[in-house]
Amino acid sequence: MAVDLLGGDDAPAVVVDGALRAVRTDPDLHLLLVGPEEVAGGLIDALEPAQRARISVRPVRHAVGMGDHPVAARAHSTVRAAVTAVRDGLADALVSAGATGATVTAAALGLGRWAGVRRPALVATLPAVAGPVVLLDVGGSLEPRAATLARHAVLGAAYSAVAHGVAAPRVGLLSVGTEAGKGDRLRRAADPALAAVPLPCGSRYVGLVEGYDVALGARADVVVTDGFTGNVLLKAIEGAYAMAGGPPDSGGAPRAAALLGVCGTVVVCHGAARPDDVASGIALAAHLWRRGATDLISGLLDGIPQDPAPSNEVKP
Amino acid sequence: MAVDLLGGDDAPAVVVDGALRAVRTDPDLHLLLVGPEEVAGGLIDALEPAQRARISVRPVRHAVGMGDHPVAARAHSTVRAAVTAVRDGLADALVSAGATGATVTAAALGLGRWAGVRRPALVATLPAVAGPVVLLDVGGSLEPRAATLARHAVLGAAYSAVAHGVAAPRVGLLSVGTEAGKGDRLRRAADPALAAVPLPCGSRYVGLVEGYDVALGARADVVVTDGFTGNVLLKAIEGAYAMAGGPPDSGGAPRAAALLGVCGTVVVCHGAARPDDVASGIALAAHLWRRGATDLISGLLDGIPQDPAPSNEVKP
Repeated sequence: MAVDLLGGDDAPAVVVDGALRAVRTDPDLHLLLVGPEEVAGGLIDALEPAQRARISVRPVRHAVGMGDHPVAARAHSTVRAAVTAVRDGLADALVSAGATGATVTAAALGLGRWAGVRRPALVATLPAVAGPVVLLDVGGSLEPRAATLARHAVLGAAYSAVAHGVAAPRVGLLSVGTEAGKGDRLRRAADPALAAVPLPCGSRYVGLVEGYDVALGARADVVVTDGFTGNVLLKAIEGAYAMAGGPPDSGGAPRAAALLGVCGTVVVCHGAARPDDVASGIALAAHLWRRGATDLISGLLDGIPQDPAPSNEVKP
Repeated sequence: MAVDLLGGDDAPAVVVDGALRAVRTDPDLHLLLVGPEEVAGGLIDALEPAQRARISVRPVRHAVGMGDHPVAARAHSTVRAAVTAVRDGLADALVSAGATGATVTAAALGLGRWAGVRRPALVATLPAVAGPVVLLDVGGSLEPRAATLARHAVLGAAYSAVAHGVAAPRVGLLSVGTEAGKGDRLRRAADPALAAVPLPCGSRYVGLVEGYDVALGARADVVVTDGFTGNVLLKAIEGAYAMAGGPPDSGGAPRAAALLGVCGTVVVCHGAARPDDVASGIALAAHLWRRGATDLISGLLDGIPQDPAPSNEVKP
């Protein structure tokens, strides 16, 4: 598991702390620390000797003068190095709390995308009364076309079944009301597109759903929306849990999201991640890798119509 | 106060119950019940004789055959009749839990819009740690232009000051990050537009804010967004409070919103309003009317540049 030591607002301290927790919690976890050697060394020193054997280091050499750049600029080179480590088989998966756009771009370019997927999706899972609710996209593609939302519906359904074991997931399209025709132009175009696309794993399209359904899960197991709306929604739910005095017992808003559509297991943590968030991001990546989620989900896409021609969508 | 007896998913029962609570709670409140006479009569019968003196009825006669239509169709005629009552001076304000689009259209056509306002805004207030957070638009204008968001920033700042007594409100634009340039095309166009527009009441533009800020209020007193995002966000926060075991002590997500930009006091309740929601919508309308909010806010717009030419925005 490659960990980007310089990704995140409070890197490297928070990443080091989160990685320590992950190594101590999961005895089968091996970490490849990607970043400055002195940071990696500090982390290794904090571990028991037996645990140290599960840590490798991939020092990142910066371009001349790069040491003068702020952490955010240097982090771009660590996430690229972490992507390269996964591509070269030195690591099975990658976790970064760096800038979402930089991580998505580095992963798409370095690992390649699945056949038929033009826009990878960031997928977050919220705990709901009825079970996990998969929300996508939460920031990968801010201005998708209807065809991209239909493709994301397929990805989300497969993810719900493979990553969470949900049988026959219900897929909904987020809008301002449940009656057909409710919503803006994108939603009115996407509703028939989602109704028409063949969905995997026995899942079915249930039509338009509303904001409540993201937190409560009463009407859908998979909620499809554009990355702008998904991102602000996820953070609003996090803020609401903080206002209500803490998240529900079943767990709060997720602060790690899986990137679906690239050839590799990639997890993006919240930029303002705390150590627990980094540790849970590492645990999510390990869970997905152990389930073979990337291969299973990309395999489920075979035989489902591909994304149409390129568009003028804005990159994240 | 004109009350649309047929607006809402569970009308008229829920509206009658909410109106009863409002009349009993506020001894200075007079209601004009707009709807079928038999429904109004049932409500009046439930009141003490002294309270009955504060109730008037405006029976709505349906077009021939209208009695066969579902409640939703008949509600369109009751909200239009309620608008007419406000226009004709029979009522000071109007409350409806009917379809948002129908209410906004009826109010804009029947009462007229403020000079310089092409797109009225639905404004919701959330309780936050630091004080009330005004969120707009929450469903009036699903696909606004940047100029409309700038105009809504002015309306929201004035509303925060006038309706909630916030001194020098901080105004933020909702996006996926706080750094300038974060967001989709609309946000990138709106950010400089909001920075350039003169804001009333000593308020100032603080730049981009994120989803957390809607529930927590740490960075802004007024959060500006498009009606699609605002609507799903508000409902997601409501769902999160329900998941967390109930709203915070300071009150949950609002289920009534004020319509700003029309010449009259109009409050729209949630279509799935419960009796308490209808009662709080009536209380909000009474509060706004007693503060003279409509006149004060429209007066604050004088001297602020007007909306530019008509666009191809989609109507709600």
